[in-house]
Amino acid sequence: MRDLHDLHVVIPAGGAGTRLWPLSRASRPKFLLDLTGSGRTLLQQTWDRVGALVPPERVHVVTGPHHADAVAEQLPDLQHLLVEPSPRDSMPAIGLATALIAQEHPDAVVASFAADHVIDDAEAFADAVTQAVVTARTGRVVTIGIAPRSASTAFGYIESGDALAVPGASDARAVRRFVEKPDAATARRYVADGSFSWNAGMFVTRASVLLGHLARLQPTLHDGLGQIASAPAVDRQDMLERTWPSLTRIAIDHAVAEPVSLEGGIAVVPGRFGWDDIGDFAALLDLRHDDSPEDGPPDNTVWVDADGLALSTEGVAIAVVGIPGAVVVHTGDALLVTTVEHVQQVKRVPARLAETGRDDLL
Amino acid sequence: MRDLHDLHVVIPAGGAGTRLWPLSRASRPKFLLDLTGSGRTLLQQTWDRVGALVPPERVHVVTGPHHADAVAEQLPDLQHLLVEPSPRDSMPAIGLATALIAQEHPDAVVASFAADHVIDDAEAFADAVTQAVVTARTGRVVTIGIAPRSASTAFGYIESGDALAVPGASDARAVRRFVEKPDAATARRYVADGSFSWNAGMFVTRASVLLGHLARLQPTLHDGLGQIASAPAVDRQDMLERTWPSLTRIAIDHAVAEPVSLEGGIAVVPGRFGWDDIGDFAALLDLRHDDSPEDGPPDNTVWVDADGLALSTEGVAIAVVGIPGAVVVHTGDALLVTTVEHVQQVKRVPARLAETGRDDLL
Repeated sequence: MRDLHDLHVVIPAGGAGTRLWPLSRASRPKFLLDLTGSGRTLLQQTWDRVGALVPPERVHVVTGPHHADAVAEQLPDLQHLLVEPSPRDSMPAIGLATALIAQEHPDAVVASFAADHVIDDAEAFADAVTQAVVTARTGRVVTIGIAPRSASTAFGYIESGDALAVPGASDARAVRRFVEKPDAATARRYVADGSFSWNAGMFVTRASVLLGHLARLQPTLHDGLGQIASAPAVDRQDMLERTWPSLTRIAIDHAVAEPVSLEGGIAVVPGRFGWDDIGDFAALLDLRHDDSPEDGPPDNTVWVDADGLALSTEGVAIAVVGIPGAVVVHTGDALLVTTVEHVQQVKRVPARLAETGRDDLL
Repeated sequence: MRDLHDLHVVIPAGGAGTRLWPLSRASRPKFLLDLTGSGRTLLQQTWDRVGALVPPERVHVVTGPHHADAVAEQLPDLQHLLVEPSPRDSMPAIGLATALIAQEHPDAVVASFAADHVIDDAEAFADAVTQAVVTARTGRVVTIGIAPRSASTAFGYIESGDALAVPGASDARAVRRFVEKPDAATARRYVADGSFSWNAGMFVTRASVLLGHLARLQPTLHDGLGQIASAPAVDRQDMLERTWPSLTRIAIDHAVAEPVSLEGGIAVVPGRFGWDDIGDFAALLDLRHDDSPEDGPPDNTVWVDADGLALSTEGVAIAVVGIPGAVVVHTGDALLVTTVEHVQQVKRVPARLAETGRDDLL
């Protein structure tokens, strides 16, 4: 039996996903898309996973004003939708939700899971979250580390240290340090070492612990969030609009996880499930290969001395000739052609479009 | 002053253009398309060029039943439209038109120009045709040879011999031989030699001379065409439908040009104009580079570490990342992605689609 009575979940639903252009657009970012072909969007899949752990009244989604309607539409059972006036990275978003939760539930444990990640085993996810919650109750900030499937240079890594011997969380270890996205040689060394896991940006902590760290490490941000959270409900949105632009723009990794890890205050539990943040089309191609032998109806795609990813949201037939590792993505008004080797450069396309005033294509 | 009073022109409008899929389709082949972006289709451009030389009553277009309506629509002044029940290569089509012309104009000179070639200098074209007509009046079959711009392996070549000293056709020479598409080394040798020109499939001959060669070299075909041409006008289409399937399927090159060249009966005049049959997307790319510095509105195409040909008949924005020499062609229902190096393989796409029953995409 899992005891998660004190768990509240924050789902930050943001991120531009410019490396997934033209699928991911400013008006329809990655989390609003059904990238896996499951019939549910990434946001809805996240909701489903979380919904197996806590009731809707303990789930908070934070998103931007342009996506609030779409989020509400995709999640009809959502009760707590927090609209941040502008993107200020993850710490203000998670911090505000945490401050609001703490007002009503001072002993709450808060877990934050991004809206646009893919996890292939909900049961293993629930097991990891359960161990993380148990560990968080001891006063640590806990992250869930993903066993590396490859020496990826696309993710940051977490180096784990000694086992913590937390009752009910036998896999929990201290975090020695967080490291930024490594180069290929370093990544290979990390994977060979065995004590490194991928940083999937999942954090589980008592609300009071996180706010305490914030008060100490980012006092201005902490106070700003406190002002918004403590405003009477009727004035809160006004206060949010006024205060938000002045808040420090910072990721939770830099604001809390990294400095606190140096103090020994971070723990990691292993996530024994397939995970991906689908950062680019190479990841999407991998995912589709894993899930199904074929991309859609085979009659609609012709590969001649070629392979890769070919998809059209409009059902247009796609033929690729002589390009191994091709990536062809067609939406109603835009078409991307590249190869697996160049998927990281795709973000330059929306950048170029923005320069030339083609905001309609962003 | 050009004297072309006896000139009649045949425009065979056929050919599948499968290497230009998905632009060129069974229902909308190359000659019906405005591939050069001039505002006129290739057929219309051919009509315009020919119209500067002869009046409409001396122009015959031969096409298939599926394209007759489109041809008539594109050429409102066309008076002679010959519909061949099925494609049987160029000799039956040109031969039938010639037989019909000869019935009313026994002394006619007949010139045949394909409907889907691009010529960049109508004046130089007219000069070459005039010399060819003058030479044809001497009883020779005359071809117009194109000075090679490169050692192309996509075309057959014509080796010229001695000058013929025809009054009014000072450039006319005897043809020593026709050679098939050569390999690259041979093509380079031909171009270096200086006496080889590209075979553009343009033939100019007295009707009686062509029919005489045909009677001798392809008697069955000659008699079949004679039966159709001599049928009373009201019965002619019936006779055509009945006789056509039994006619020998053969190109004019093999039926007449090659054997007669060995007898010394063929002459060549040089065509001093840019010419292309736009056989594949590499040719189309060259053509567009020649014509204009940019492909369409620059804001609708984004090249990142890439170049090539990108076009969408639907105005879809196209971004290409990391593929030099890319070829991206989008029509309403189909999308081709390849590179300049692989354009010859494009014909395998419609072949594959036919195998899988996707006739809607052919």
